[in-house]
Amino acid sequence: MDAASQPEGLATAADATPVARSRQGASVDARLVRRLLAILGNPPLEFLLAWTGERIGAQGTAPAVHLRIADRATLLSLLRDPRVRFGDAYSAGSIEVEGDLVQLLEMVYRAFPQGSAAGSLSRRLSGWLQRPRRNTLRGSRRNIHRHYDLGNEFYSLWLGETMAYTCAYFPTAEASLEQAQVAKMDHVCRKLRLKVGDSVVEAGCGWGSLALHMAGRYGARVRAFNISKQQIQYARARAREQGLENRVEFIEDDYRNISGRYDVFASVGMLEHVGRENYSELGRVARRSLNAEGRGLIHSIGRNRPAPLHPWIERRIFPGAYAPSLGEMMQIFEPASLSVLDVENIRLHYALTLRQWLVRYENALGKVRTMFDEFFVRMWRLYLAGSIAAFETGTLQLFQVLFTTAENNRIPLTREFIYPR
Amino acid sequence: MDAASQPEGLATAADATPVARSRQGASVDARLVRRLLAILGNPPLEFLLAWTGERIGAQGTAPAVHLRIADRATLLSLLRDPRVRFGDAYSAGSIEVEGDLVQLLEMVYRAFPQGSAAGSLSRRLSGWLQRPRRNTLRGSRRNIHRHYDLGNEFYSLWLGETMAYTCAYFPTAEASLEQAQVAKMDHVCRKLRLKVGDSVVEAGCGWGSLALHMAGRYGARVRAFNISKQQIQYARARAREQGLENRVEFIEDDYRNISGRYDVFASVGMLEHVGRENYSELGRVARRSLNAEGRGLIHSIGRNRPAPLHPWIERRIFPGAYAPSLGEMMQIFEPASLSVLDVENIRLHYALTLRQWLVRYENALGKVRTMFDEFFVRMWRLYLAGSIAAFETGTLQLFQVLFTTAENNRIPLTREFIYPR
Repeated sequence: MDAASQPEGLATAADATPVARSRQGASVDARLVRRLLAILGNPPLEFLLAWTGERIGAQGTAPAVHLRIADRATLLSLLRDPRVRFGDAYSAGSIEVEGDLVQLLEMVYRAFPQGSAAGSLSRRLSGWLQRPRRNTLRGSRRNIHRHYDLGNEFYSLWLGETMAYTCAYFPTAEASLEQAQVAKMDHVCRKLRLKVGDSVVEAGCGWGSLALHMAGRYGARVRAFNISKQQIQYARARAREQGLENRVEFIEDDYRNISGRYDVFASVGMLEHVGRENYSELGRVARRSLNAEGRGLIHSIGRNRPAPLHPWIERRIFPGAYAPSLGEMMQIFEPASLSVLDVENIRLHYALTLRQWLVRYENALGKVRTMFDEFFVRMWRLYLAGSIAAFETGTLQLFQVLFTTAENNRIPLTREFIYPR
Repeated sequence: MDAASQPEGLATAADATPVARSRQGASVDARLVRRLLAILGNPPLEFLLAWTGERIGAQGTAPAVHLRIADRATLLSLLRDPRVRFGDAYSAGSIEVEGDLVQLLEMVYRAFPQGSAAGSLSRRLSGWLQRPRRNTLRGSRRNIHRHYDLGNEFYSLWLGETMAYTCAYFPTAEASLEQAQVAKMDHVCRKLRLKVGDSVVEAGCGWGSLALHMAGRYGARVRAFNISKQQIQYARARAREQGLENRVEFIEDDYRNISGRYDVFASVGMLEHVGRENYSELGRVARRSLNAEGRGLIHSIGRNRPAPLHPWIERRIFPGAYAPSLGEMMQIFEPASLSVLDVENIRLHYALTLRQWLVRYENALGKVRTMFDEFFVRMWRLYLAGSIAAFETGTLQLFQVLFTTAENNRIPLTREFIYPR
């Protein structure tokens, strides 16, 4: 739901307490629900108002999803700030969804394609109000800690054994999550033409799966940076277990402090946390890290056009995060005179990945409930389901950008090497 | 050579007539040449000054290329506005090059990587002064006429039988020009997943090779737009010869006047003539032309970072032309909510293509001289050689951008379909 497209009239109506029957016989509550439905484009939804027992649905369609609203305060808050309040009310249990949560969220995303009112003053104002928390060296540590240090055990319940927390690559839609995560790592390594003895620097390494894959399967030497303490500890333990501690160095430090020169620069799923204000610095870091014939790859969630992250996601899930358009991503490469060789958009792969995460998450709820309260349990479900909806509706994209130095002429003529026979 | 990096001191020295021996014994001419060489990074060049007989080369290196300057006026003009004056003096025969012309031009491009002083006031000023001729409906007709209506016979002397005047695609570096042009058309058609019965609109169709290929080999129905009268006449004749006049319609009109809805939007080598001020309109045209599951491809010369076209090229060869950075190209897609699926940079293919054009051009000089004077003959050689140098040094890029509508979910999971086994 889109606060920017919230007509002023609604807020006025929402304040019109006490609630009473209108002249037409419909309660004020029912009229508010109808306004909300109209804003949503009258999707096949039915609202159940718990405090009156009323059921109000879009006219002329059989409802596919039912939303139970616990109390009038929730309904009013939804009308005031729908995008943030829906998430919070769902997490608190004041909204219950009967039916497919992903389907509901897709209806909402389709009703409000991002950027439909781009350029308007209200949109720019809301963009300014919604600007993410700044990613200074200290700010980044705080932002990353809030999401990635929730506990390695929690993430291991649903990420699968690779512990890769980024979009997988499905050679076919039937591939398992583990197969698709390994295929993603191979896809990245092939694009980068990684070979035995190559030196790699990785900016943002999660729990270390790509760094370990590059060293273990490709014979590379990897220095991997991350500011999440828990992730680094986990990654180091894995390196020892796999006997790769001499080939992979996990460094608890910010990407801005990367030094040295390498054959390969890789960053998978970190750009979302960099902040637009730091893109040119990231480009300088990538440029100065690369040998004359060095290759780089940045893999990131993106957008078809510039827009702030969903405000509930930025507030409750990913503080400081931002998903750039491809044009915005070019602010990394262009000032640094890096040369973009290849861009691939694999957004539908993220929907497939998230569907598998959500299934595993639901199956692990018993254990999750021993770690977190019910608010968190529901919030996390909504985050995963909403992300599926965002990628399936094209609200979010997933870009892999391959680049090299401007002067490098050792570039394969075709991309067939990425697709071995 | 880069006017923007021209130190003021040089202009002053250049004005210091009458020419006399300096205290060190070197002539003022020789000192000016040394200043020019220093600006160029002291490449292995030797200047022969025809009016004094002096030979002045970079110190400590055996010269690989010799430049014979006919008179002092040419040397002075080179120092005043080197980028434009070099081209004009070469065309007029006031500069003769002994040695490899491409190698000379690559040295110059490598000495002045584009955008090294980006953001400076002088650079922005020079960018403003060098802004290309505007591409209004009428301006575009004039600009296109000047280049593309030089005579179909002239172009047929060196473009090869496909008459494709855009970057080819070399499956291997040994492919012939004809093989590589056909491979390029197939590469484009595969990316677009072109199939029998698909409707295609082409914006800027040259002499019709791609449109005819799409209809003849893929069974598509094509409407192809072009504002070059001579090209359209040629393309129509080819359609009749090939019996494709019922499947391909060649329309002498501007891309801005495209109407109707299609499965495919294709534009190969037109964007260079569109003008940045029209990118968002091009995006709107592409968007409104596409069915819900439509695919589009724009193939264009580009840059690693924004910069004006070489001023001699814009003035003498391609009036109104501009090669955008990828970030600038996104101004086509982002405001129109188109979704970029795939970007491929094939700049080295353009160097290979141009090398084959240059060989054929040199072999056809006898015929060219019956059509044009020697100034034109030399100008065209410099344009082809300079373009080779620009693509080989990374001064220019070649981007193919594949896109679709924001809502289209019928997207193959992988790009393997582009690389059939």
